[in-house]
Amino acid sequence: MKLYDYFRSSAAYRVRIALNLKGLAPERAFVHLRRGDHREENYLALNPQGLVPSLVTDDGAVLTQSLAILEWLDETHSRSPLLPADPSGRARVRSLALTIACDIHPLNNLRVQNYLTGTLGVTDAQKDGWVRYWIDTGFEALETRLAGDAATGRFCHGDAPTLADVCLVPQMANARRMDFDFTPYPTLLRIEAACAALPAFANAAPAKQPDAEK
Amino acid sequence: MKLYDYFRSSAAYRVRIALNLKGLAPERAFVHLRRGDHREENYLALNPQGLVPSLVTDDGAVLTQSLAILEWLDETHSRSPLLPADPSGRARVRSLALTIACDIHPLNNLRVQNYLTGTLGVTDAQKDGWVRYWIDTGFEALETRLAGDAATGRFCHGDAPTLADVCLVPQMANARRMDFDFTPYPTLLRIEAACAALPAFANAAPAKQPDAEK
Repeated sequence: MKLYDYFRSSAAYRVRIALNLKGLAPERAFVHLRRGDHREENYLALNPQGLVPSLVTDDGAVLTQSLAILEWLDETHSRSPLLPADPSGRARVRSLALTIACDIHPLNNLRVQNYLTGTLGVTDAQKDGWVRYWIDTGFEALETRLAGDAATGRFCHGDAPTLADVCLVPQMANARRMDFDFTPYPTLLRIEAACAALPAFANAAPAKQPDAEK
Repeated sequence: MKLYDYFRSSAAYRVRIALNLKGLAPERAFVHLRRGDHREENYLALNPQGLVPSLVTDDGAVLTQSLAILEWLDETHSRSPLLPADPSGRARVRSLALTIACDIHPLNNLRVQNYLTGTLGVTDAQKDGWVRYWIDTGFEALETRLAGDAATGRFCHGDAPTLADVCLVPQMANARRMDFDFTPYPTLLRIEAACAALPAFANAAPAKQPDAEK
């Protein structure tokens, strides 16, 4: 197995956490997004979207899109299940994860920020306001759902980490890279702290990766 | 079962297709997004994100996020499986679906368009350019992947519709609402036509819904 990774990609960060939870340590290659490695012919042949992560399996299949990779890891490696057993619980966990993976993260990633400041010519302050707005909009909904539901435990769903936590922690790390006010989100902070206490989460953090930069 | 729907929401359109494929016809309520029904207290109590669709199951669980609803439908209703049986095929189908559901659709939905023209004050032409850019960026990757892979059949994956087709058709319908050039995407057009021939897809189209407007 080989992971195409970038320390600062929060989609790759999700996959790193899941690999750690599953006890897997694949070979890794690093795709430097700010330098444009993802636009090189070799990488586009592997992943036509030019995004990270990609995961090449032992039988040569190229898996793309972090949530598809996470589901594949969960279907093929039973240790530390990322989804509960009941369909209704699975739907809850996936919905929490998708709120981040569809409705926060894609609006704020590097290519979108570049379009805003480049093609549309918005100021850095407007761009930061955009990023903060979509994080707040998503976090408000997550805080309401998590705080008001008995299915929430030490983690987003019960007392073991799931797909929802795997998506939440990298999104919170992204927010921490800017001046972001977490005061309205006590439940998210509590769950983030519970995750940070687990080596699988702590060791997946951007700063701990071989390609990390200051 | 009760679906909270809006004819023009492409996320709701996905769920309508899947319900038809599964032979299910739940009760429906219509949430008029342009009129702001999704910001009303009653709806926010159901779905704190204020997005459609939501699906209330027969035992009262409220399911949100279209992909989580689709996975739930597939796990609880075996007719017309939305995912293949093998993990690698499942990862391929999910990745194709997520390319649309994460990397095209959320960038172009109504709330984002409103932020662009309202808060950021971009012109309608710039806004249309944004919408077209993200559709093209996603469709280029999809066309490359689908055209170059023997796993593609009459539909995105083999000869039966899957989650990928369920996401593709509504996204193409969105693109058709603007002046969009489909010439570079012959494989997408071919698959869209194969889907349109199925009543499950045809009957889910926005124009056929009870809340449709001209």
